Amino acid sequence: MALIVQKYGGTSVGDVERILNVARRVKETYDAGNQVVVVVSARSGVTNELIARAKSISSKPDNREMDMLLCVGEQETIALLAMALQSLGVPAVSRTGAQAGMLTDKSHTKARITGVTGGDIPDRLAEGKVVVVAGFQGQTSDGEMTTLGRGGSDLSAIAIAYALRAQICQIYTDVDGVYTADPRVVKTAKKLKEMSYDQMLELASSGSKVMQARAVEFAQKFNVPFEVRSSFNNNPGTIVKKKISSMEDFVVSGVAIDNNESKITLRGLPDDSVTVAKIFQALAEDRIIVDLIIQNVGHDGLVNLTFSVNTDDVARAEEVVNKCLSQLGIKSTAQNAGKIAVVALVGVGMISNSGIAAKFFKALSEKNIKMQMIATSEIRLSAAVDPSQANAAAEAIHEAFELGKDI
Amino acid sequence: MALIVQKYGGTSVGDVERILNVARRVKETYDAGNQVVVVVSARSGVTNELIARAKSISSKPDNREMDMLLCVGEQETIALLAMALQSLGVPAVSRTGAQAGMLTDKSHTKARITGVTGGDIPDRLAEGKVVVVAGFQGQTSDGEMTTLGRGGSDLSAIAIAYALRAQICQIYTDVDGVYTADPRVVKTAKKLKEMSYDQMLELASSGSKVMQARAVEFAQKFNVPFEVRSSFNNNPGTIVKKKISSMEDFVVSGVAIDNNESKITLRGLPDDSVTVAKIFQALAEDRIIVDLIIQNVGHDGLVNLTFSVNTDDVARAEEVVNKCLSQLGIKSTAQNAGKIAVVALVGVGMISNSGIAAKFFKALSEKNIKMQMIATSEIRLSAAVDPSQANAAAEAIHEAFELGKDI
Repeated sequence: MALIVQKYGGTSVGDVERILNVARRVKETYDAGNQVVVVVSARSGVTNELIARAKSISSKPDNREMDMLLCVGEQETIALLAMALQSLGVPAVSRTGAQAGMLTDKSHTKARITGVTGGDIPDRLAEGKVVVVAGFQGQTSDGEMTTLGRGGSDLSAIAIAYALRAQICQIYTDVDGVYTADPRVVKTAKKLKEMSYDQMLELASSGSKVMQARAVEFAQKFNVPFEVRSSFNNNPGTIVKKKISSMEDFVVSGVAIDNNESKITLRGLPDDSVTVAKIFQALAEDRIIVDLIIQNVGHDGLVNLTFSVNTDDVARAEEVVNKCLSQLGIKSTAQNAGKIAVVALVGVGMISNSGIAAKFFKALSEKNIKMQMIATSEIRLSAAVDPSQANAAAEAIHEAFELGKDI
Repeated sequence: MALIVQKYGGTSVGDVERILNVARRVKETYDAGNQVVVVVSARSGVTNELIARAKSISSKPDNREMDMLLCVGEQETIALLAMALQSLGVPAVSRTGAQAGMLTDKSHTKARITGVTGGDIPDRLAEGKVVVVAGFQGQTSDGEMTTLGRGGSDLSAIAIAYALRAQICQIYTDVDGVYTADPRVVKTAKKLKEMSYDQMLELASSGSKVMQARAVEFAQKFNVPFEVRSSFNNNPGTIVKKKISSMEDFVVSGVAIDNNESKITLRGLPDDSVTVAKIFQALAEDRIIVDLIIQNVGHDGLVNLTFSVNTDDVARAEEVVNKCLSQLGIKSTAQNAGKIAVVALVGVGMISNSGIAAKFFKALSEKNIKMQMIATSEIRLSAAVDPSQANAAAEAIHEAFELGKDI
């Protein structure tokens, strides 16, 4: 008998039929003698509908009220899934994020977890019940509802798995694992059996869309193993954990595409590290994640700075940066410089193997794809390209590194 | 400056435009220097949608999970209305039923209020904020979400008004007050300026559909004055309070129609009061409200019993009664005897004025309307008729008592 946390995303619980399908899968795991905790998202589309309704009332809805509103989505699915399990004869009970002891800070709509107790879940499991927990939600020490931001349900699942010392956390999605590239874009993409947190992290932050980086970071920090698998079939998924065996022989594990980034440009900044540091600190305090950064020398000893953020955050990022600049007394304005796509190659030992960057650049140049920005890390090599060329870039890189070959 | 509690029902907050309309009305009251607490229902249709979704998953969804599900509806509207108020420059904050200190027993989906503290509402009002409270919801001492049952938001508003010692509780609806009869049925129906709790109670329990009886009972018990008025115009409504002035001269105040009742028949019960008492006690314990009751002598010293309940409760009532009969060892079965409409004349001193019943029966007989059951109380005279004749019956009674005449 194992304690298993399963997380089902919005597509998997999109309608009544799919909720019943999830209940049947949970029942299989339960009937096999396991203790099961299920973490669910809102039905797909519901969160966006709620946001649209809020935006039609106010162009800038209050974040505290936004959280009150958004918590509705998951609360619906936990109740429906608990009912579905009961209808199959599986004793089940639902818990909101607050009831599951998901404690957060007060940053509404982007709250960070400060602790997770699991609430009374162990007692309910001991009674033989399946516990259905609302992902995405938390509660402050004052009893205010919060949400964890984009992809928060993955984070909820990992955190609950940690709190309960679960044997495994299964992340069910609409893909059946992590591939060497997006299979819809690159036909020869191949599923990985195992990978490390670091590699997953780079794929996630590069927009592989399987999981958000925060959830993987949390899993890495607290060493929570998890498996990414499909809720629509029984194929084995991709296991993400600390040590990996088969992957150690490879250099490169996959190609990721993020089509939802935009560039922000700042011209004429003083050439000192203080200014840049303050700008990125202001963005960090507002929980805006910056991906690529480039700094160029401009005129008269001044520098130009360009960085990329998620397109949804562009307006807010401009505002934050401009406020920061005016506080610093600097005459420069942040400007939205349009959408980009970031194509990234992820693997181990990227930097120590100089041939990789060369091969990467050659693959793109052969297809006449211009790189607007470049960034490297231990395990990632990223290039910003025009969104219209993103897929071609991914295919070119996938082919150059022969990622479709059998291992 | 007064402390005013305003309650808006589902139709009044049915969509974004109507929510903004409510916000504008609240702003008017706030701008006039009042402290305002707003209690809202779910958008019209939302609760039924949620119930339908639950029923498509399970024919008998668990009540605890049903409450978890239904609380979603009001939580959406409080957030949207708070945003709408903020967008008009009115500082506002939302509170769930639990946060507003609405304490209930553990009877999920039909919870009864055990206490109401108002939570931190007085502090927020003192800060100059409008507080938007979710109607219909409560919380048990264990922190479980509950709902108050049909019409629960009216009850929430009255209870909050009581807890905060509000000067008045305004119940906004889609009608602009209480009429002598349903104006859609009886063209000459007239709006009442004032009435007593008792009269309102009889109109409410007879299905005037303006308010549920429980809310009026609570108001009466704790002497909370309230006004029924329209959210679509500024007409003065009907004030319901302990003492009334102008009404004391009248005998009859109005005609009510309830189209949503059904008869249950029990044949061959022993002719003792114990059996009947046990049956109605079992129904009461299950919170099923019985309206009309008739007992006839049947064969062999046995009696037949017929009573009416809300059509939504028929299946459950049959179940409860049959369980009770089998426990008592009585060979009889509760049978659903079909739908009825109850037409009631409400006023003061009904019983002491014998001419009233005679006039009532004559009005119906002249239209060849058969009465299936009859019941009287201090202030109500009710007859069950075939649903197809309900409107004709109401018109006949309204005309016979000249209720359309100017006072």
